[in-house]
Parts: sequence; structure tokens; C-alpha cells
Amino acid sequence: MRAYDLIKKKRDGGALPTEEIDAFLEAFTSGEVPDYQAAALLMAVYFRGLTPTELSAWTSAMLQSGDVLDLSDIPGRKVDKHSTGGVGDKVSICLAPLVAACGVRVPMISGRGLGHTGGTLDKLRSIPGFRVDLGVERYRELIGEVGACLVGQTDRLVPADRKLYALRDVTATVESIPLIAASIMSKKLAEGIDGLVLDVKVGSGAFMKDVGSARELAQTMVGIGRSMGKQTVALLTDMEQPLGRTVGNALEVIEAVDVLQGRGPDDLVEVTLALGEEMLSLADVARGTPARDLLRRAIEDGRGFEKFQQIVRAQGGDAAALEDGCRGLPHAALRRPVAATEAGVVVAIDAELVGTAAVALGAGRERIDDEVEPAVGIVLDRKVGESVAAGEPLCTVHGSDEARIGRAIALLDEAFTLGDAAPEARPLILERLV
Amino acid sequence: MRAYDLIKKKRDGGALPTEEIDAFLEAFTSGEVPDYQAAALLMAVYFRGLTPTELSAWTSAMLQSGDVLDLSDIPGRKVDKHSTGGVGDKVSICLAPLVAACGVRVPMISGRGLGHTGGTLDKLRSIPGFRVDLGVERYRELIGEVGACLVGQTDRLVPADRKLYALRDVTATVESIPLIAASIMSKKLAEGIDGLVLDVKVGSGAFMKDVGSARELAQTMVGIGRSMGKQTVALLTDMEQPLGRTVGNALEVIEAVDVLQGRGPDDLVEVTLALGEEMLSLADVARGTPARDLLRRAIEDGRGFEKFQQIVRAQGGDAAALEDGCRGLPHAALRRPVAATEAGVVVAIDAELVGTAAVALGAGRERIDDEVEPAVGIVLDRKVGESVAAGEPLCTVHGSDEARIGRAIALLDEAFTLGDAAPEARPLILERLV
Repeated sequence: MRAYDLIKKKRDGGALPTEEIDAFLEAFTSGEVPDYQAAALLMAVYFRGLTPTELSAWTSAMLQSGDVLDLSDIPGRKVDKHSTGGVGDKVSICLAPLVAACGVRVPMISGRGLGHTGGTLDKLRSIPGFRVDLGVERYRELIGEVGACLVGQTDRLVPADRKLYALRDVTATVESIPLIAASIMSKKLAEGIDGLVLDVKVGSGAFMKDVGSARELAQTMVGIGRSMGKQTVALLTDMEQPLGRTVGNALEVIEAVDVLQGRGPDDLVEVTLALGEEMLSLADVARGTPARDLLRRAIEDGRGFEKFQQIVRAQGGDAAALEDGCRGLPHAALRRPVAATEAGVVVAIDAELVGTAAVALGAGRERIDDEVEPAVGIVLDRKVGESVAAGEPLCTVHGSDEARIGRAIALLDEAFTLGDAAPEARPLILERLV
Repeated sequence: MRAYDLIKKKRDGGALPTEEIDAFLEAFTSGEVPDYQAAALLMAVYFRGLTPTELSAWTSAMLQSGDVLDLSDIPGRKVDKHSTGGVGDKVSICLAPLVAACGVRVPMISGRGLGHTGGTLDKLRSIPGFRVDLGVERYRELIGEVGACLVGQTDRLVPADRKLYALRDVTATVESIPLIAASIMSKKLAEGIDGLVLDVKVGSGAFMKDVGSARELAQTMVGIGRSMGKQTVALLTDMEQPLGRTVGNALEVIEAVDVLQGRGPDDLVEVTLALGEEMLSLADVARGTPARDLLRRAIEDGRGFEKFQQIVRAQGGDAAALEDGCRGLPHAALRRPVAATEAGVVVAIDAELVGTAAVALGAGRERIDDEVEPAVGIVLDRKVGESVAAGEPLCTVHGSDEARIGRAIALLDEAFTLGDAAPEARPLILERLV
């Protein structure tokens, strides 16, 4: 393998043989191929794409760059869910315990948040004592004993992706659907799963702004999953406005607990149940009963919440903090309403602006080494289609610092659009791809 | 200027503002922008191209990365010729003295050869004592006093191009017409010229294999020249077979001297006169007389050869070595004819294979630090359209080492195609662009 020849072949629209992709990614990970050659290849891939065969080879080579977990000695099918990221997307936190309560093994390995969408791990860390760095042995134990765990990536999982992503990030080659798909799928396939449900977010608050590109990404990922012998289903879900009514770490955990306790907001509950149904179906645990009924029952009889507390305890967290409206979680010292200046109906909430306001408050990271504040965030008092009188709050900022609150409010003032009448309701689940 | 933003803008098909191109190339040359970002930008330029405005800015920024010579205090117009490179292309060696003998100032700065086309400097170095590293002051003196000089680039001329070219060479981004054009034009414009004649070679032995891409490169370079206020003319000339009858350093100097002494081969003479006419016209020295007549006269009365000897002496070389059929130049110890196995007419000579055979003999470089042997090379006993009997030589190899001669002969056996009848004659000068 000569890196030059690979770059030239891809530049000219040719397909790279599997063994050359293997050799390239191995040599890149080991540092043998310099970053400048990898950068040129990535940009050529940006323009030329990857064929399905190349994409399988690329994903597989990434996967083989590190440990690939084998959970086959744990009985039952292991099914995970992955979201491409959205504002207020706390679905993993209620979904994992809920489907685990229905008998699905959920080996969920998440990343940290960067940019305007928050990371599941940061949200979970707002629970006192909760640890996300458990090591592979404890991870296996939890999947076997508790049925689910929510942890972070180790350095030994897909090191090629970490190195490649860092390079893509500075060479404007992140926005390539095959490279995004390979990055996501290699990390998920390294978890030792049997099936995967993908939540591909579409809209202003998502990475994919339109249905066309979201569908392409979903199809690409489903294709990779299938080529690697894993059952994969993708739902395209709406991210024009934030999901649920909270954005921020502890605030989102509280809302996820609301779902598990039967009082979650409609949109969040709907997305959770839709993804949960797919997971139950892939795990083949429904056995004749409609999967949605099983999920609802696990909410009604408290088994979902119980399972969450069990996970929290198993990962070193204070499960009691989640009792009585999560009063043991951190709460922000300052609360500032953002009031409507005139009466009207909310016709749009720009999810990206809300996410950016949350980052401004300290709920997310602008840079990779920023510290995240667990208590700060935004509560949406009004969502799209709801009326507001002049002076009533559109949302409430939870903050710790007046200057940051000021910056957030300036953004939130722009985020809400009022009109005379409620817009036609958008479907939450836009498409399903298998 | 954030390199990331430039890469993204170019990737998405946008045009880069002049000040950002300036800042990028400055930061790249100083090492502030890392190679991996430059590599990504180069690949994006490969796919998206550069607009005429961007191209002017890019060339100008390259130019400004180093010294730009100012020859305006030397009277008369300074005109140079640049060739994109071909096999047997020794035109500069006879052209520069010939047009200088007609009163044109020729400040010619050349590069070294790499690959299957030889470099003018390597050819000139086969003249005992000839120096190509003269320094800027001596360069100016020679243009003023002798009227021409043939030297190598200094480190202070267009350092951005040297660094960028090294990166392009390993990232498969050499073959980009705007980048090629900017590289050539920045180096030429740094010489302090008033006008430039471009010889864009087309065919199997040239960088541009077809007329379409050669025309695009020529138009691009002429456009840059015009935008920088320099008169620029391009000729597209044939490089399907080698130019003249010799390939190799001393052998090509001998043939260039043949041209100056009125006994050069027709094709080499024709290309030399066609380019010379353009140079005389740009320098405005013909004053009513047809330029071709002036050039012929300078051959006939010996002024062209005299001027060449004057240049050689001025650059430290042994001008007497060029007397009596250049008997003072190095000659190869071994000569091996490559004979035709059957009678026929030569219908094609693959110029690239002949060039590769010359490199195999040691006449050119495979790697940038290879030493070049002055005496070795190939004499074409037959050119396209000429008949040969079985056993008569097609060409004669001049070598110093039997193993290398063997490798060259194997290539040359493949280079000649015989047929029953002479093919239709191809025009030597394919197009003229201004």
C-alpha cells in the first residue's frame, strides 16, 4: 500500500480494494502514514464518496484498530440505540432502563457532547457519584446482571476513529456522509451488539438539516450494519424544536425520570416509545404482546424507574438523588424568565439557538476541554403550537452567572418565533428505514 | 484567516478573498498552518478549481513569499520562454542565445529535471565548468552585459512554491491546472520579465497528454500573465515523439549547437524559430523586418553561436568545448545500436518510453537526489515517417554501464512502432493562444 496511490485512485473516482483500506487505516493509526496524506485522502473521499464495499471495508478496518467486545456468552440479544444528536435529546437516559426492564440487554457506550448538542455522559454525570468510566470487565458484568449500562468509550475502542476524527475536525472533512456513517457504526459495532436502532435527527437543531441528507445518512448506516451481519433499523425524527421541555444536564435527567414515572412530555415519550418498540422487536422479547404495551406497562408499574435506579447504583451513583422529583440533583442558583413581549402562538423554536444558549450558560462545551456545569440550562415554558400572553414566560433560564445568563437570554430572544395561529403539527417520526 | 474556514469555503465551491489567500500562503510558508490543513485545501482546489481572481491572488501571494527581481534599470524589454517539459526538449539552449543575439534580454531561470523529461540546467552542466548558481547580482550583470543568462532558482525565489510543490507531490495534488499554472507563473514573474512565451507540450512525452487539457493550462497561464500586467503568449507544440534526434544531456547540447550552426534537425529548428518569433515580437525588436528573418540571419552569420559561447564563458564554462562538433563535451564510452528486426516505416515513437529509457541510462533522475550522467543518452537514427531496413538502427544508446544499457534497450524496443506507410504528418505547432 502506497498512500499516494490510494489518494490518487480515490481522487480519480476509483474504488479502493479492501486490503488497501485495511493497510491505510492501520498505517495511519500507527502514525506511519502522515496526517497530510490522510487529510488529502479524506478530502478526496468527501468529493468522491465510498462505495458500499469500500464502506464496509473502511468500517471494518476502523473496528479492527482496537478491541471489539464479545458479549456472546451473556444470554439474550444485545441491542443498542444511537442518536445522531439533537438539542434536549435525553432519550437514552429513559430508553435504556425502560427497554432493559422489558428484558433487552442494552450495552450503551456514548460519547461526550461538543457543540450545541449535549452529551448523554455529561447529563448522567449530574447524578452525584455516577461513573461512566467502568472498564470492560465491569461493563460486561453490568450487562449480565443489571441488563444495561451507560458508559463512555475507552481508549482501546476504535482508536483509528479517534485519530481520524481529530484530523477531520480541522480539515473540514467532518461533513461526509460515508465518513460519518463509518465513524458511528464502527464505534457501535465494537460494543458487541446484535442489533442497533438509529435515531437520525432532522432539523435546525440536528447535524442533518434536511430529510434528504438525513435519509442518506440513515440508509448508509443501515447498509453498513446489514453488511456486517447486524440487524439495523433507523428512524428519522424531528429536531426542528428541542425535544421535551428541558435543555441542560441535571434538567434533562429530571425530565427523563419524568418519562419513567409516567409524566414525561408527549414528544419525548413518543420518541422514546417509538425507539423502544424497535429495540424490543430487534431483541425479540415481545412474544406476541404489542411492544408498546410492554413499554407502557414498565412505566406504569415503576419497573423502568426501578431499573434506572439499579443502573445508577451499579455505576456508583446516588439513586436516592432521583427520588421526590430528583431533589438530590444539583439545582441552579439563579432563574430568569424570558418573557414574551406580546401575545401570540409559538410557531417555531430554533433548536440550534437554544442549544447554543445552553452552551453559553455552561451546560455544554465550546472546546473539548471545557468543564460542564451540571445544574444550568433552559426550561421551555412554551413549545410550538402553545399560546402565550404578553409578559408570560417563553422559557426560563437556570444559571449560575449573570453575564452568562445575559448572553443566553440574548440568544433565546431570537430563538422563539410568535405568530397568530398554531402551525400545522409536524410528525415526530418522519421515516423508518430498514 | 482561519485555515479551517478557507478549506470549508473552497470545499463548498466558494471563492476565497484575496486577503485570505495571502494570509494562508504566508502562514503556510512560515509553518504556522500545518501541512495537513494545506493538503486538505489543495485537494479541495483540485476538485473546485480557482476563479481567475483567486488565481491572480494565489500567484501573487506565491510571488510575494520571496524575492521579486526588478530588472527595470536594465534597458530593453526582458522576455523569457518557459516549456512545460518534454523529451528531447533542448530548445532553451539554442533559443536564449539566438534571441539575445537579436537584441532581446533573456533572464532565464530554470528548474532541474525530474521524471522522464530532462532539465535544462542538467544539460548545461555537461559543459565543463558551466555554473548555474550565480547569485542575483551576477544574474543582473549578465542580463545587462551579455543579454541572457541561464541559471537555477535560488532559495529566495518563491519559497512558497517549493514548499507547496513538495506537499502536492506526496498528496496527489500535482495534476491541478490552476495549481500548475500558479506554480509556473509565480516563478517566471519573479524573474523580473516584461513578457513571457509559453511552450505547452502536448502528447505522450508531455505532462499534458491531450490538446484539451494543454489548451486549458495555456489559457490559464496566459490569463494569469495578463492579470499581472505581463504580455504572455502560449504555443501548443507536439510531443508525441521526442523533439530533435537526441535525448541526454551533452547530446542535447550538441544538438542545440547544431541549430545555432545551421544544421539542426527540422522539427527542433521549427519550434525554436516559432518561439523565437514570439519573443522578438514581445520584445519589440524586429522593427519592420520579419522576426523569422532576423533569427535565420543570426544563425547564418554565426551571431547566435557566438552569443552562446559568450554566455558559457560568462557562466564559468569552457566555451572552446563547443568547437569542432563539441568535441570538448563528455562522450559516452559505450554505444549500442537498437536495430529494427524487420523493414518498415516508423509510424510512432513513444516519447515517454524514450524519456524513461534515458533516465534508466542515468541521463535523468528517478529521485530528487540522484546524480545525472552528462554523457549518456539516446540518438534517434529514425524519426516518425522515416524508413528502416531490417538490421538497420532505429536508435543508438550511449551508455556507461552494460546493465543500464540493457534496461534502456528493453524500453526502446517497445518505443518504436513500425508500419507499412508513413502516417500523415502532424503539425508541430498545434495552437497559438494570447
